[in-house]
Amino acid sequence: MSIAKPQPAGETGLAQFQYLRLADSIEEKISKGVYRTGEKLPSIRTLRSQAGVSITTVCQAYGELEKRGLVVPRPKSGYYVKPRLNSILPLPTVRRHRVKPEKVQVNVLAETMQETIDDQSMLPLGTAVPPADILPSKQLTASTRTVAARYLKGNNIGYGSPGGLDSLRRQIAKRMSGCGVQCSEEEIIITNGCMEAITLCLRAIAGPGDTVLVESPTFVCYLQLIEDLNMMALEIPTDPEQGIDLVALAEAVNEHDAHACILNPNFQNPLGFEMATDNKKQLLKFMTERAIPIIEDDIYGELYFGNTRPSLMKSFDQEGLVLYCSSFSKNLAPDLRVGWTIPGRFTHRVQRLKFNSTIASSKLNQMIIDDFLANGHFDRHLRRMRNTIQNRLVTMARMIANYFPASTKISAPKGGYILWVQLDDKVNGFDLFHRARQEGILILPGEICSSTGGYKNCIRLSCCHPWNEKMEEGIKKLAEIIADLWGVRG
Amino acid sequence: MSIAKPQPAGETGLAQFQYLRLADSIEEKISKGVYRTGEKLPSIRTLRSQAGVSITTVCQAYGELEKRGLVVPRPKSGYYVKPRLNSILPLPTVRRHRVKPEKVQVNVLAETMQETIDDQSMLPLGTAVPPADILPSKQLTASTRTVAARYLKGNNIGYGSPGGLDSLRRQIAKRMSGCGVQCSEEEIIITNGCMEAITLCLRAIAGPGDTVLVESPTFVCYLQLIEDLNMMALEIPTDPEQGIDLVALAEAVNEHDAHACILNPNFQNPLGFEMATDNKKQLLKFMTERAIPIIEDDIYGELYFGNTRPSLMKSFDQEGLVLYCSSFSKNLAPDLRVGWTIPGRFTHRVQRLKFNSTIASSKLNQMIIDDFLANGHFDRHLRRMRNTIQNRLVTMARMIANYFPASTKISAPKGGYILWVQLDDKVNGFDLFHRARQEGILILPGEICSSTGGYKNCIRLSCCHPWNEKMEEGIKKLAEIIADLWGVRG
Repeated sequence: MSIAKPQPAGETGLAQFQYLRLADSIEEKISKGVYRTGEKLPSIRTLRSQAGVSITTVCQAYGELEKRGLVVPRPKSGYYVKPRLNSILPLPTVRRHRVKPEKVQVNVLAETMQETIDDQSMLPLGTAVPPADILPSKQLTASTRTVAARYLKGNNIGYGSPGGLDSLRRQIAKRMSGCGVQCSEEEIIITNGCMEAITLCLRAIAGPGDTVLVESPTFVCYLQLIEDLNMMALEIPTDPEQGIDLVALAEAVNEHDAHACILNPNFQNPLGFEMATDNKKQLLKFMTERAIPIIEDDIYGELYFGNTRPSLMKSFDQEGLVLYCSSFSKNLAPDLRVGWTIPGRFTHRVQRLKFNSTIASSKLNQMIIDDFLANGHFDRHLRRMRNTIQNRLVTMARMIANYFPASTKISAPKGGYILWVQLDDKVNGFDLFHRARQEGILILPGEICSSTGGYKNCIRLSCCHPWNEKMEEGIKKLAEIIADLWGVRG
Repeated sequence: MSIAKPQPAGETGLAQFQYLRLADSIEEKISKGVYRTGEKLPSIRTLRSQAGVSITTVCQAYGELEKRGLVVPRPKSGYYVKPRLNSILPLPTVRRHRVKPEKVQVNVLAETMQETIDDQSMLPLGTAVPPADILPSKQLTASTRTVAARYLKGNNIGYGSPGGLDSLRRQIAKRMSGCGVQCSEEEIIITNGCMEAITLCLRAIAGPGDTVLVESPTFVCYLQLIEDLNMMALEIPTDPEQGIDLVALAEAVNEHDAHACILNPNFQNPLGFEMATDNKKQLLKFMTERAIPIIEDDIYGELYFGNTRPSLMKSFDQEGLVLYCSSFSKNLAPDLRVGWTIPGRFTHRVQRLKFNSTIASSKLNQMIIDDFLANGHFDRHLRRMRNTIQNRLVTMARMIANYFPASTKISAPKGGYILWVQLDDKVNGFDLFHRARQEGILILPGEICSSTGGYKNCIRLSCCHPWNEKMEEGIKKLAEIIADLWGVRG
């Protein structure tokens, strides 16, 4: 998480000043549109001549701009203005519905989706699982082989500590500390992925009949869980750029009895927004005054497109009311199912539920992640992955702008790899889902991201897969079906 | 699971007859005590002269007796009368308590146990986790390396099918078929160990406030789960040799409204009995008439000491009311956390709960088990393991008979590696637990195996670890503490 300090260049302190000044001037030109998104920037030699500085200074200036998230290097080609999403298509509109606790019934719809979840022949725009080409498979394999040799032949092959592998928890605690969350390894509980973390946390803080606040639209698995646990969902209107509507939230909490809250403040699934730090603090203060615990799902937190990782609600939590949940599933190794939670004042209760429902998480898998992290591969991998997924997301957004009807609206994620697409009111996302599936394309109908019956004209697309001809054909095909559905129903 | 047919020996069919007759005569002498437990049997040459038969016939007779579970070969030494447990000390008494649904409160007690669960410096008689020396670590490592090379570098690194890896499910279906359970791979759901299987099954068939039938004493984790889910436990008196009391069960069901049932018919934890097939059928019939689903936990099923694997309740289930649960944790790889369930008519509901609470089980771990099974190592490993654990169990029972007070009673397990020890009424198992822990010895106090407040003078010992001086010292130390507690309180 540490940001490398720039090396002092040249003979004097002036050089250091120069590269920052050069970076600032390029940034200004980018923001004024002199250099446009995706455009190639002047070569290092050209810029050296133009600005009358050394090659070192130019290189450092581009390095600085890269850190600022404004430019991206392409091997053997030079520097390019980094693509940005928010200019491609308008944002989806905020849905203003009557805010009241709802009995959730999304499982049957969601199960239609799951049937084909592992079908490798389908175009995988449905589930948000990172493909192998952006994962560090080679190093993971090496870690697995190292661990297998040491561990399985050893003597300590049992269930391990119910809270998880101590060394992995120490490494996680260190990373969390880099995000402003100070916790000891004992406060971290390793889980079978983030979803087990959320399940255990929700079971720890609420019971059948209780009301759970969520963003609207929200992640379908939260709703499925709320349904399974016979709880009620209270969906709060949510802005695709600002996040949950704090005024609507306050009204809802004052009007209805809420017992818990599941939020996704950084790179929300499905809208991709990043909540402003002030809003996070305000929301936390409000909930703390009412003693309503918050489950903060930060599974996409490491996949930011800005300069630095956004703030965590957990880092402002003085009362232990935030139950932080995350995992390595979206950014390193989906299948190893290694997640964790820092449940604050509910640690003991979550620990108990963890032990009593699955005893412990596989130590082998924890050791693989532990070895990988200890070898220092993770941050380098993440830097590469952030660049790649942002490019893929932008490419997808451009293709949607190219092929989909002009009235289409899309989200402008600040991180993660999910796009929320709002189609014309006449297009039903479930019809689109069924038709697309027949054509070998998986998408997620927006309707299942809510229990209010809204978002019928929305779909969610997962955009982490490499762009290729098949993908472009898929997007074209989706556009055709949309046109067809629009025509039929228009 | 197939039993090798004896090869026809010698020139005529008579030889085949002869070896069986010889085996019968030796069996008779063993049962009459002519050859006693642990004693060396006549050498092959001696027996050839005595019986006037060929060496082949003698070898086949001993082979037959081995299959009957009566003799055991020792390398370079010959055949020995197999140790049997039920002659060492008297059986524990059946506890007759008032049978009524009880609110469960065992978690706080159980958590005292968990604190030291992974402390490698302790003598591990508390938890029933197989030690590395009886697990096929070398082959598991080989499977892990093979799988890592193929899988992590491949393209299909995602969550996999929510129900589990198809090839593993096919292999499990085949093994289940060998036990009389005919099911397709789609009816099997892979879980994070057996405890997740039981958790999901119980959540699928009962809700808060519902009453769950269990044996008494029972496995503490069932009670912890029942407590977590706010259900009630209805404990039925259980005989250490025959299993659950069917008359008491019928009365309890008629008097109270029971919604579910968790049983451990084969090698029950903690008593180790094997329910007779007729009793299994009778119980199933009774429950089927009342439409009460049965969770059949068969985690110790492969670890039988008799000739063949005992019958499964699931194999007689016509209505899909038995939710079968098992795992590889007790007999192959505790840490890989690969279990499974065959939930009968509740498959869809269990599948949903599985997906919504942990998405899927780690495919890597499933592939390791799958590769290991496909290589044909499992049955050979199990044969060795059954012999080893039986010997360890008998050694432990003998040492208890040697060192513990004469009034001690112990169970006579038909499989598994757990001993239930009943001490004098004046000895409190929890006091013993605390004192023993100070001496570096972990045991399980019997009190937590019930929510009736009974079994205060009982302890559960896990007996799968190799016998050595440290172990003998530990048993002597336990005996000293017992004597001390008895004296203090007597």
